[in-house]
Amino acid sequence: MAGNSFGQAYKITTFGESHGGAVGVIVDGVTPGVEITLEDIQKELDRRKTGQSYITTPRKEPDKVHFMSGVFEGKTTGTPLMMILYNKDAQPSAYNDIKELYRPGHADYTYSRKYGIRDWRGSGRASGRETAGRVAAGALARKILRDKGVNILAYTRRTAGIEISSFDPEVIEKNPLRAPDMKAAEEMNRIISKIKDEEDSMGGIVECRISGVDPGLGEPVFDKLDAELAKAMLSIGAVKGIEFGKGFAAADMRGSEHNDQMSADGFITNNAGGIIGGISTGEEIIFRIVVKPTSSINKVQRTVSKEGKEQEIRTEGRHDACICPRIIPVVEAMASIVLLDHIKRLGAMHI
Amino acid sequence: MAGNSFGQAYKITTFGESHGGAVGVIVDGVTPGVEITLEDIQKELDRRKTGQSYITTPRKEPDKVHFMSGVFEGKTTGTPLMMILYNKDAQPSAYNDIKELYRPGHADYTYSRKYGIRDWRGSGRASGRETAGRVAAGALARKILRDKGVNILAYTRRTAGIEISSFDPEVIEKNPLRAPDMKAAEEMNRIISKIKDEEDSMGGIVECRISGVDPGLGEPVFDKLDAELAKAMLSIGAVKGIEFGKGFAAADMRGSEHNDQMSADGFITNNAGGIIGGISTGEEIIFRIVVKPTSSINKVQRTVSKEGKEQEIRTEGRHDACICPRIIPVVEAMASIVLLDHIKRLGAMHI
Amino acid sequence: MAGNSFGQAYKITTFGESHGGAVGVIVDGVTPGVEITLEDIQKELDRRKTGQSYITTPRKEPDKVHFMSGVFEGKTTGTPLMMILYNKDAQPSAYNDIKELYRPGHADYTYSRKYGIRDWRGSGRASGRETAGRVAAGALARKILRDKGVNILAYTRRTAGIEISSFDPEVIEKNPLRAPDMKAAEEMNRIISKIKDEEDSMGGIVECRISGVDPGLGEPVFDKLDAELAKAMLSIGAVKGIEFGKGFAAADMRGSEHNDQMSADGFITNNAGGIIGGISTGEEIIFRIVVKPTSSINKVQRTVSKEGKEQEIRTEGRHDACICPRIIPVVEAMASIVLLDHIKRLGAMHI
Amino acid sequence: MAGNSFGQAYKITTFGESHGGAVGVIVDGVTPGVEITLEDIQKELDRRKTGQSYITTPRKEPDKVHFMSGVFEGKTTGTPLMMILYNKDAQPSAYNDIKELYRPGHADYTYSRKYGIRDWRGSGRASGRETAGRVAAGALARKILRDKGVNILAYTRRTAGIEISSFDPEVIEKNPLRAPDMKAAEEMNRIISKIKDEEDSMGGIVECRISGVDPGLGEPVFDKLDAELAKAMLSIGAVKGIEFGKGFAAADMRGSEHNDQMSADGFITNNAGGIIGGISTGEEIIFRIVVKPTSSINKVQRTVSKEGKEQEIRTEGRHDACICPRIIPVVEAMASIVLLDHIKRLGAMHI
Repeated sequence: MAGNSFGQAYKITTFGESHGGAVGVIVDGVTPGVEITLEDIQKELDRRKTGQSYITTPRKEPDKVHFMSGVFEGKTTGTPLMMILYNKDAQPSAYNDIKELYRPGHADYTYSRKYGIRDWRGSGRASGRETAGRVAAGALARKILRDKGVNILAYTRRTAGIEISSFDPEVIEKNPLRAPDMKAAEEMNRIISKIKDEEDSMGGIVECRISGVDPGLGEPVFDKLDAELAKAMLSIGAVKGIEFGKGFAAADMRGSEHNDQMSADGFITNNAGGIIGGISTGEEIIFRIVVKPTSSINKVQRTVSKEGKEQEIRTEGRHDACICPRIIPVVEAMASIVLLDHIKRLGAMHI
Repeated sequence: MAGNSFGQAYKITTFGESHGGAVGVIVDGVTPGVEITLEDIQKELDRRKTGQSYITTPRKEPDKVHFMSGVFEGKTTGTPLMMILYNKDAQPSAYNDIKELYRPGHADYTYSRKYGIRDWRGSGRASGRETAGRVAAGALARKILRDKGVNILAYTRRTAGIEISSFDPEVIEKNPLRAPDMKAAEEMNRIISKIKDEEDSMGGIVECRISGVDPGLGEPVFDKLDAELAKAMLSIGAVKGIEFGKGFAAADMRGSEHNDQMSADGFITNNAGGIIGGISTGEEIIFRIVVKPTSSINKVQRTVSKEGKEQEIRTEGRHDACICPRIIPVVEAMASIVLLDHIKRLGAMHI
Repeated sequence: MAGNSFGQAYKITTFGESHGGAVGVIVDGVTPGVEITLEDIQKELDRRKTGQSYITTPRKEPDKVHFMSGVFEGKTTGTPLMMILYNKDAQPSAYNDIKELYRPGHADYTYSRKYGIRDWRGSGRASGRETAGRVAAGALARKILRDKGVNILAYTRRTAGIEISSFDPEVIEKNPLRAPDMKAAEEMNRIISKIKDEEDSMGGIVECRISGVDPGLGEPVFDKLDAELAKAMLSIGAVKGIEFGKGFAAADMRGSEHNDQMSADGFITNNAGGIIGGISTGEEIIFRIVVKPTSSINKVQRTVSKEGKEQEIRTEGRHDACICPRIIPVVEAMASIVLLDHIKRLGAMHI
Repeated sequence: MAGNSFGQAYKITTFGESHGGAVGVIVDGVTPGVEITLEDIQKELDRRKTGQSYITTPRKEPDKVHFMSGVFEGKTTGTPLMMILYNKDAQPSAYNDIKELYRPGHADYTYSRKYGIRDWRGSGRASGRETAGRVAAGALARKILRDKGVNILAYTRRTAGIEISSFDPEVIEKNPLRAPDMKAAEEMNRIISKIKDEEDSMGGIVECRISGVDPGLGEPVFDKLDAELAKAMLSIGAVKGIEFGKGFAAADMRGSEHNDQMSADGFITNNAGGIIGGISTGEEIIFRIVVKPTSSINKVQRTVSKEGKEQEIRTEGRHDACICPRIIPVVEAMASIVLLDHIKRLGAMHI
């Protein structure tokens, strides 16, 4: 009943705090006989790692992954796949000044209230570092999906008031924002660098497109494909909302506009974002998530101590001025896990 | 692995199609000894029923609920609580003309592709009637929550291009839109009535506020309170997106603006919408969902038959021009189930 | 976290007390497109029903099953299959004398202590009538399994001190004990009839053989096929133990005797009972369960009232002198559910 | 749907093969704030380790446990507790001769057939070494239970044809069989040492007694306390059966003998073994499991190769002549996990 597992037929269970011994994941339900290398996993983890540009945190985390079980002679065995990333030597003294304070926007207060105890080194379990296990598990899922013709692509759609106005998937990995519009990306980067210099941070919108999904995926009435994707995305720390297809714009639309009519060639529009009745239509699945501005900023803010005494706080250190580019591999990983899980579930139903 | 159950410690499993024998729910994990009457349940079901105003469907559904188990001498026993609502006599002939056609915006096509078989009477399992079981299970949860000081209130925030500009909870049940602003409600109703006369429908935004939740609710890292609420809401047929607190507006905000700073009196702002790190902060929980325009419209639309032949279709009948007011009790029910489930889960952790 | 569901890919949730409105089951994960009739289900239910012989209770229960959802035009749709059996008019007055007493061997005391409230009419949720839902769900599973070549056969192996000494499956349904040895069955029946006349009851051993299971079924390390069958069997009211293959006799065996060696024709022996390492070997699966003597007897026994006052009690009425023959369809149903569930789970793993 | 997790409110997920990088466990649902040391865990692991006497394998396994997460400043934090035991350097060459052969009584054949791939070093995932994770997770559960007054004690009741005839809990840890009867233990040890010299092995019966459990534990109708204990025990490699209270002897008993009657002082007898209707009665919980003779023996046996060719095999090496004493800590661990899980589940129900 605690909530550290996700998925049913492809089930992941993550563990680890930012300053404990390690973070990692157990994947249960792995298809046996899949060729997999550490490099396949590491490649995705490297996209998530720190220090990739001026606007992301220059902290260096040791993100080297190890297999501890479930792989034999280069292939998955179908038994639990355990992947682990050791933490570097903890320097808890660096966190001494926040030990007694709740950082605004952070989960310090809520963890304290929930558990009655808090690992105050870094953000403990609420650290973004926990997502390394998700990305590792997602990398394997993604590889299996790719062989089934399913492709998942996430990118920054909007930040710093700039929205992309063109779409070239080739440039996504070539700019620090992971935006598919090089011109917009440069402008975004310029503004966020300035915000960073002002010791502040910025939110944004990440969009995800999934192609190659056959019609029929998703399990009504509760485990609808969009419901599960929503849960998966909202389980990522900084995400505060999600919308599919036309999303919130549908509030101002009429049925005659929003309904996706059909011709002999298939759906004429895709306002639904590839999911109707919680089941994939075969069209591209499209959703957007909103990413809140990074909570850690160097600006002075008001807060209270554990004893409730008012204090000022500056979350000193090297933070991501915009977390969108580093959330993208996590979005892709979680989407991969949801899809593979549902492909397996659909298969079981038809047996 | 099919997906007709929701919740863990307060778990509901719904069954039923719109034109089968019945719809209903089994609730497992009911607190024993809770006083409950059929009227407590019926009252919530009546808010969901058809024929409440000009803009909702005038179809008459027999929404009378029966207890079949789990209640003895007016109290819950802790064993599975089964509640059933019989369907009226099916008139499948009324659906003969859509038997071979996929209605635009409906789940006809996706159900056919998923299951290879489709109950074409009404919308089968994809019918809004399925939510009666949810509302029944939610009514009990809501009663238990109320005794714990938790109150849940949903209402129409926007439709037909009109947004509420005042907030009076007393008027919500007094206008057909269930909007907390009487003046806005009248304008919404006027426009939607006109849209209905034009044989069309309209989307909208429903907002939900939950007060009285202690800090500490929600199970990181996957079953975060917002993640579970998101799944619960996206599992409702017409919902295409959700946002918490500032929601999508956070994309254009800075950390120094969005972070909820604290004083000795508690949080100074509530931009997070009452949830940080997936755990309740003790502030009011606020989220908004977008409701797509009703798919069933009398206007002529393009579609194809099961054989892929192009055809025109008019989904004749008496439809909801805006489904927001009837979705509100379902939103409240699902929120109740999520909250009670998490209160029980939190309790188990601390044992 | 309450425990009224069983299975994952073929999941059943039962509801109902003996004297509430109804008992029944929701099956989730049904293969769509399977031809099924009420008669297919009723046939198995009739094997479980009361009044089949002198040694079983002559009470008449209305065991007529109804489909409420999940079946359309004679085929399963893949949506939740709900089956219900209404209870006859409750005559709670018949139970007035046990309202305040705990019947020895019954769950009256434990239910009271667990829930703090007890439906004292009949045995409430602890009634054998609850198994009707299991038998109904098992009947569908069994039909699907039969098409896959899997056959499940349970029978009385021992009761009243008589053990079968021959095995003819044809005679099982032709004697009141459901024993595969007509001569033994007659002797069993003679002795148990006498025990019944003495207002007492008798235990026994039921054996189950499952053929046609391919090697590879079962999910290590916790959901081993024998572990799941053990749980399924021990979840049946009167069952107090289970053993596979040589079972408890293995305590006195050497490895060289117990190990099933292999030749080019396959396993030479089947001491393991068809399961090694929690996975089916392809040999016949064999297990035995011990059934305690029926708790309800007319003999005078010592007990206490709810207030702890000592009293004498006679559980008057018409009881099963030996419950083995009526447990057999439940054993077969639960075994069917376990096997189909695992076939689906195995399929999902290999996707 | 793979089966490497056990429990709901206190949930363990194990990973690891005997010759991969490590074995271990993630525990989810840990009560926060519990004082725990590595020594608390190590102490239980040491009881399971190899090389404790002549009749157990003299192989030396590195059973040193490490915390990787979920513990901070000597206390549990409520986040996933990960415990890991690294494997010593694999010497896969030692297993070259069995690489192509199925060892009789081992899971080699069934794993090959299930997964289509097999880690042939040691017994891979089917190795007894997997249980180290269970024992580690059980050690924490046991500590929490002890504080609640619950005590769990398992011991060898029978092996080598010798049954205990006295019961002194003090001597259990003082003889290599872990039997509570010193005289019987000596005789067991003498016979098994001889069997070991004959390159053979021996089965046995382990009994478990649990005291201090309040009435009311267990979740009807499927997650009955005995059903869950049965699953837990049958999930242990060498276990082939389980019985509660009078167990299989109940087959020959009458209701008037088996029923546990009550006086003002409580139950007069405990034939049920402390569980009625799947719920604890408050009496001592008693069950027995049968342990098959160790499959690995040095004696020559018949088997086939992967290609189905007949061959002779001797599973050379240093094996346990009787596995009972090493299974005992695993039995206690799994019983602890079942009980703590159910105490948490019961708590959640009453909220």
